[in-house]
Amino acid sequence: RAESWSFLDTAESNFRPLVVIELAKGAKEETIEWFTKRIVDRKADGGAQLLIKPLVTENGHENIYLVGASHLRLLLGAETVGLVKECNDNSMRTFTYSSRKTFKDFAEDNDNFLTMAECQYIIKHELENLRAKNEKMIPGYPQAKLYPGKSIVRRLLTSGILVQIFPLHDREELKKLRHSWYGRVKIGYQPLDDIRCYFGETIALYFGFLEYFTFALIPMAVIGIPYYVFAWEDYDKYVMFATFNLLWSTVILEVWKRICAILTYRWGTLLMKRQFEEPRPGFHGVLGINPVTGREEPVYSSIKKQLRIYLVSLPFVCLCLYFSLYVMMIYFDLEQWALDYHRENESTFSSLMLYVPSIIYAVVIEIMNRIYRYAAEFLTSWENHRLESSYQNHLILKVLVFNFLNCFASLFYIAFVLFDMKLLRQSLATLLITSQILNQFAESLLPYWLQKRHNKRMKKRMCSQKTDTDLSLADQINMEKEMGTYLGTFDDYLELFLQFGYVSLFSCVYPLAAVFAVLNNITEIYSDALKMCRVYKRPFAEPTANIGVWQLAFETMSVISVVTNCVLIGMSPQVDALFPDSKMDLVLTVALVEHLLLAIKFIMAFVIPDKPRDIQMKLAKLEFESLEALKQQ
Amino acid sequence: RAESWSFLDTAESNFRPLVVIELAKGAKEETIEWFTKRIVDRKADGGAQLLIKPLVTENGHENIYLVGASHLRLLLGAETVGLVKECNDNSMRTFTYSSRKTFKDFAEDNDNFLTMAECQYIIKHELENLRAKNEKMIPGYPQAKLYPGKSIVRRLLTSGILVQIFPLHDREELKKLRHSWYGRVKIGYQPLDDIRCYFGETIALYFGFLEYFTFALIPMAVIGIPYYVFAWEDYDKYVMFATFNLLWSTVILEVWKRICAILTYRWGTLLMKRQFEEPRPGFHGVLGINPVTGREEPVYSSIKKQLRIYLVSLPFVCLCLYFSLYVMMIYFDLEQWALDYHRENESTFSSLMLYVPSIIYAVVIEIMNRIYRYAAEFLTSWENHRLESSYQNHLILKVLVFNFLNCFASLFYIAFVLFDMKLLRQSLATLLITSQILNQFAESLLPYWLQKRHNKRMKKRMCSQKTDTDLSLADQINMEKEMGTYLGTFDDYLELFLQFGYVSLFSCVYPLAAVFAVLNNITEIYSDALKMCRVYKRPFAEPTANIGVWQLAFETMSVISVVTNCVLIGMSPQVDALFPDSKMDLVLTVALVEHLLLAIKFIMAFVIPDKPRDIQMKLAKLEFESLEALKQQ
Repeated sequence: RAESWSFLDTAESNFRPLVVIELAKGAKEETIEWFTKRIVDRKADGGAQLLIKPLVTENGHENIYLVGASHLRLLLGAETVGLVKECNDNSMRTFTYSSRKTFKDFAEDNDNFLTMAECQYIIKHELENLRAKNEKMIPGYPQAKLYPGKSIVRRLLTSGILVQIFPLHDREELKKLRHSWYGRVKIGYQPLDDIRCYFGETIALYFGFLEYFTFALIPMAVIGIPYYVFAWEDYDKYVMFATFNLLWSTVILEVWKRICAILTYRWGTLLMKRQFEEPRPGFHGVLGINPVTGREEPVYSSIKKQLRIYLVSLPFVCLCLYFSLYVMMIYFDLEQWALDYHRENESTFSSLMLYVPSIIYAVVIEIMNRIYRYAAEFLTSWENHRLESSYQNHLILKVLVFNFLNCFASLFYIAFVLFDMKLLRQSLATLLITSQILNQFAESLLPYWLQKRHNKRMKKRMCSQKTDTDLSLADQINMEKEMGTYLGTFDDYLELFLQFGYVSLFSCVYPLAAVFAVLNNITEIYSDALKMCRVYKRPFAEPTANIGVWQLAFETMSVISVVTNCVLIGMSPQVDALFPDSKMDLVLTVALVEHLLLAIKFIMAFVIPDKPRDIQMKLAKLEFESLEALKQQ
Repeated sequence: RAESWSFLDTAESNFRPLVVIELAKGAKEETIEWFTKRIVDRKADGGAQLLIKPLVTENGHENIYLVGASHLRLLLGAETVGLVKECNDNSMRTFTYSSRKTFKDFAEDNDNFLTMAECQYIIKHELENLRAKNEKMIPGYPQAKLYPGKSIVRRLLTSGILVQIFPLHDREELKKLRHSWYGRVKIGYQPLDDIRCYFGETIALYFGFLEYFTFALIPMAVIGIPYYVFAWEDYDKYVMFATFNLLWSTVILEVWKRICAILTYRWGTLLMKRQFEEPRPGFHGVLGINPVTGREEPVYSSIKKQLRIYLVSLPFVCLCLYFSLYVMMIYFDLEQWALDYHRENESTFSSLMLYVPSIIYAVVIEIMNRIYRYAAEFLTSWENHRLESSYQNHLILKVLVFNFLNCFASLFYIAFVLFDMKLLRQSLATLLITSQILNQFAESLLPYWLQKRHNKRMKKRMCSQKTDTDLSLADQINMEKEMGTYLGTFDDYLELFLQFGYVSLFSCVYPLAAVFAVLNNITEIYSDALKMCRVYKRPFAEPTANIGVWQLAFETMSVISVVTNCVLIGMSPQVDALFPDSKMDLVLTVALVEHLLLAIKFIMAFVIPDKPRDIQMKLAKLEFESLEALKQQ
């Protein structure tokens, strides 16, 4: 079945390469034979029933394999993973092979019923669910132990025999997508549905959120501009601005949930049932019985994990926070030094020097954030969480707490200890703009430039004078396998989260922040799109129904911003002047207003339904139908 | 099938009367014949396939019918309503007839596999789901229109042909339950499982909550006693007490969720799938198509409902709130008058007179609450909500807002406008104790006494000299049908909610409140038990998985209490003395502490898992099994 297949052999038109498997250079023949046999074996025999072909280039065999599947196999796989597709009556339903005829655009000869991203997701799912039967170890590697039910691919990956599995780019589709996404400068929405078809729901939802968030910031930016132009320093105007901001930020977060429901309903992921979560690849422990599944799998004591979290991770995070505060104090020394220097020799140079400490500090913050990120990943992985979701939650919590303090501690210190509004504004502006520039550069432009240089060298080495589109499959695979791996939307959301903090926490001091955020996000859309299409390997699609923990993170930030803004407004000399007799009345009024705003926030969050009425109706209809079906049974 | 059946005819042992149907005295023969035929008709013919027999007494036919069902029919009904029962392997599973052998205690000849309450619930469900086929009206009553799919029983009820449907008491079981519940004075838990078997989950959960809440209040009460005994007036001690109270109240509400999960898992309702919600009986509108079910049913425009809510109900509620505040001002006038009187002629009588205004006000509050309750019910019913849940939510919101203001406005006014802590303590104590005494009397003792008197008269009239247990079925039914109807747990929860308010809102001023709450709750358990067993008709069991909106109400109250307690502590002269130089520092410290406490509350609510680990595991196991079963398919 796994005969040799050269990239020139176009006669076998029914084999469409979807996923690439790269094995280690020295992988034993015996292992490869066993692994490919398991992949092509029939389902009933415990195989994945997929198609696999080695890639043979001029240089001979390179241990690279192409995986595909027959049309029928993919349809059955779509049923296994629980894909939700649109029916002929425009409702969304879980796909089953037996009811395939009721689905929109379905025809026995239509290979495009499932998008390529969906096919690749199915293949990934099937490969990962290829489980050991009675093998005690991977043939040829006695140290790579197996036990019944263990995912073979995960064991191969952790023991280094399997280098990587990645989905192939579709150069035609990618070109079309690039063109409609960022190929021409235009005012309009992103082609979210196309992005979803190509990259999957998680990434499309990130771009959807980025776009929505940018649009949502525009009113704030528009209202913020006159503050700069007319140099409005009256605090009554700032109060209005801040109040608008606070209510607006609640509204946009609530409305996002509704838009998210509309998008994910259309994409089918809102209805998709959660799959049972297997242990993450890195999870280790002594072999035991999982009480839930009754299967043999590694078991790791929960107490040991708790000890690692509370005795190692927690102190480490606290140490990092302390270090971050220490760096902050150095920044203030620098700031003082620059101020002294400016006072001594007043010149253009010295006034420019005033900005230098902030810029240096912004750069240091970015560097610390990145270093800490690696440390947090290492620690969380060492904590040995069984589930990917638990790992992610612990990682996100660690990173969020540190980044929040690292980025905003200096601003809080300036605002509530130094009471220096001028320095606050200057510092906020410098931090925001510097971090945006650094991020854009480090995230997209630098990798793009490196990738471009690398591609050129590759092409030169291969001595092929063809243009981009003429690339043969082997060249394409060789190029793609060297590309970086996209590590998920975490960093992108984190960047937006910190930006939201800069915009909302001190919005009454620096209304222009929203303007910079909008400008940054517009370029961010383009640079992130470039990054996805040009810099990284194609990622596997991940079905998702919402932005998960980030919704909570943004909502928490907006609660904190109510408190900070109220305090800032209360501290302003203009508001102070309204209560000439009693500071007491001032503080009480501020506290009252703050509680009122918080109450309004919570009531608004409660009153605005999370799903639009028509989506609610559609979901109710589906639920009713499934209840009726159960009754019929 | 519906032959005559006298109460003496004990030969037909397989008919066990479960539910009583009382038709109007003058109901037409034709209607009765049609209705009973529909009840006994086979499922396939659109009937309910139940057994029905008229009750014939010495006085002849009284239009009272007894409904029962065969053992098989009940088992099939259990599958229809989705009952969850315990299996032989101690796991909880949805009952299906085909898998009946795997369930614990199941035997073909065991009639006790389903509890009597479950059987009655099944019969109620089947009767309510008896739907019109092609009848245009109820035979004999052309004005009582029907349309395909309309519930026949609901139409009969709304047109007054059907007086009531109620489940029969099981005198043997009730006697046993009474004995173990409140028959002997003992220290120990209530027999919650027996209560659940007899009265269903909603009522058992209420008693579970009442018991849990009482136990949870004991630490507060124990800590509160020395404050009274040693007359501790130091505010540092009050601060400690209040802080403990605030954190404790968060903990108990979170822990209740876990206990609730344990109880409802054991009872099977945690796993029970929600049934599709039909329109409530009182809902009316022009006939249209329901977009969700596609069935014909009354449709009422959402805009009209919104108009009724915002243009009539909302102003009415505001008016009531205004009236309540007006009454409060009268109370303060009375209070002033009593104070003046006491000053003029100091005597024991005049010092007793000081308590009179509070007592009168407490009585007036209770009366206003009860009158408002009826008005709110009328208005909410007039708003014409389609679903019972929506009706309940609007009713609860209306009642909660009014009761909260009505009960606590005077206390807030005394605390934060008059700054009179002595009056606050006195007023709080009087309100709390008076309302508790009134409630116990009005809710249980008065109805019990009325019922007792009524029973005696009934017995005298029937000239039967038998003791209670010898009552024949006909006598029992005649007695029960005259008993009051238990209107659900709403009032009971409301009482607990207001009590929680008295205990927590001003806990730092009157630590003894918890002691009174505990004492009240202990008698409340007994008087509520008496009420359920002796005063009211047996209610139909209602499966439920939690205490619903009350959880939210209690949590909101505990958030409000953090704010009020912090302010009260900040206002105390002792804390004032700690900040001799700057009132500003005092207010800022109080605000900081308040925010800290609120943050701790939210983090605690987030960190404590809603379900205990073993319940989580069991649920995960079930989910895993159902996913595996789907895969096998």
